[in-house]
Amino acid sequence: MQIGIVGLGKMGANMARRLTRGGARVVAYDRERAARDALAGEPRVTIENNLANLAAHLAGERVILLMLPAGSPTQDTIDQLLPMLSSGDTLVDGGNAYYKDSKNRALQLSQRGLRFVDAGVSGGIHGLAQGYCLMLGGTPKSIEIFEPFAKILAPGPETGWLHCGPSGAGHFAKMIHNGIEYGMMQAYAEGFALLEGRKEFDIDLARLAETWRHGSVVRSWLLDLSVEALAADEALAAAAPLVADSGEGRWTVLESVEQGVPAPVISMALMARFSSQGRSDFASRLLAVLRARFGGHAVTRRS
Amino acid sequence: MQIGIVGLGKMGANMARRLTRGGARVVAYDRERAARDALAGEPRVTIENNLANLAAHLAGERVILLMLPAGSPTQDTIDQLLPMLSSGDTLVDGGNAYYKDSKNRALQLSQRGLRFVDAGVSGGIHGLAQGYCLMLGGTPKSIEIFEPFAKILAPGPETGWLHCGPSGAGHFAKMIHNGIEYGMMQAYAEGFALLEGRKEFDIDLARLAETWRHGSVVRSWLLDLSVEALAADEALAAAAPLVADSGEGRWTVLESVEQGVPAPVISMALMARFSSQGRSDFASRLLAVLRARFGGHAVTRRS
Repeated sequence: MQIGIVGLGKMGANMARRLTRGGARVVAYDRERAARDALAGEPRVTIENNLANLAAHLAGERVILLMLPAGSPTQDTIDQLLPMLSSGDTLVDGGNAYYKDSKNRALQLSQRGLRFVDAGVSGGIHGLAQGYCLMLGGTPKSIEIFEPFAKILAPGPETGWLHCGPSGAGHFAKMIHNGIEYGMMQAYAEGFALLEGRKEFDIDLARLAETWRHGSVVRSWLLDLSVEALAADEALAAAAPLVADSGEGRWTVLESVEQGVPAPVISMALMARFSSQGRSDFASRLLAVLRARFGGHAVTRRS
Repeated sequence: MQIGIVGLGKMGANMARRLTRGGARVVAYDRERAARDALAGEPRVTIENNLANLAAHLAGERVILLMLPAGSPTQDTIDQLLPMLSSGDTLVDGGNAYYKDSKNRALQLSQRGLRFVDAGVSGGIHGLAQGYCLMLGGTPKSIEIFEPFAKILAPGPETGWLHCGPSGAGHFAKMIHNGIEYGMMQAYAEGFALLEGRKEFDIDLARLAETWRHGSVVRSWLLDLSVEALAADEALAAAAPLVADSGEGRWTVLESVEQGVPAPVISMALMARFSSQGRSDFASRLLAVLRARFGGHAVTRRS
């Protein structure tokens, strides 16, 4: 059981470790030397210094897992790998690609006799210990080839991984998963903000969150993480109020628009992140100026 | 260890059972005979036929748990009970009262020498087996009196119950808990709707939800319930698309307005419930008619 892994960031490196601990042999590559060095010395891992060596090292019908940022890093790597691959090889994209790109990729690769699996991966930095939740798209044959590795990566051999459907279905399921995550996180964030804002009760947020973990309707893994975060620094003073967004939230909202199926909470959670990034500021300035124009209300000057 | 319970609905009856199984003696009353009969025969439970007998049956400094709908059912019962109570007795309101009402209630009762605990209770019909999450507001003394019962009702003696703060803090915490619940539920609902709407993938929603339970970021107790619901009837064909709302969601949104702290996702989740109740229909009719007025677009006639 041998697999190539390209991309040894937080996700890729830990997936390599989990695979080797589960008995697989891993041939790994990252374009960053520091990332390669960090994995060197792990049992059953061979580090290669370039893609050609990685491809040459893998025997038989190769399986290569790409754990790269979606978009050009993934596409560029596939483009470089293509001349080194042979009919029957399988590429597994474990990044957060847009599912429509994954559908196209599967089609293009199939025309060269290559197999493709789009693998939505959830679990973050806790996946090494707890296992990764895997949402897989592809032909039955391509999934069959990846299955032994999925069974090691997942929390259990028969739990936490699913062949969701044809190519694209894995990244589609992951996209929706992340959209739900946006909404859930925003719901908790708003609730804790309102708890914090009602000063008369001076509620211990970390202790309340911990209490909710036991028997309440809102218990969840995200709540478990909230307990840790609030216990470490209840005022969250070290964090600026700025939330990044990756592609998944935007794609989920595009999906809502394309289907004509409302997703108001997921959309609003995305908009809240945009606002946190300062992207409501022009609108807020316009509102302030308009209030001054029609009502003579003072406009706060920028400092 | 003896406690009176008034209100033997889904919550009250099971809380009575959990208390007796934990070693307490319960004197119970419900104005509905069927509810009283359903609890009759439980070990260590005495059923009384009216409030006066319940009050008379309890010895020493009485502790009476009210498990009644918020508003007039709770207030009317307190009004009837008052002449039967003595200084040092403790009333515990386990219903979903508005926290400002609970603050007032605590003040009024304290003027008569009575103690009051506002107890937010989460756990629903699963609380009997798993324990109830309890959010308590009141003076340290009143909480001390209720503590032995809280330790039985909660999932564990030291987990799942919290003295949140002074009177009102318990129901305030429960209100925010339910607001978060609205947002989380809506996030899942939107995500599953988008999964269901993308027919080309034909994803098995119950199996995907079950997969997410293992290692994913969105795992939660509400997801566990989603698995059960989708596995029983993936098309949810038996349910009309109508979602009730109780007071808690509305109060949470009022809290956002009062504090001037945004809660867009919780607000939107509440609005989505209003829409499901048909309360967007007038606005939708107006939009349809306006489109006809300015653009000549056809208006679908009501059947």
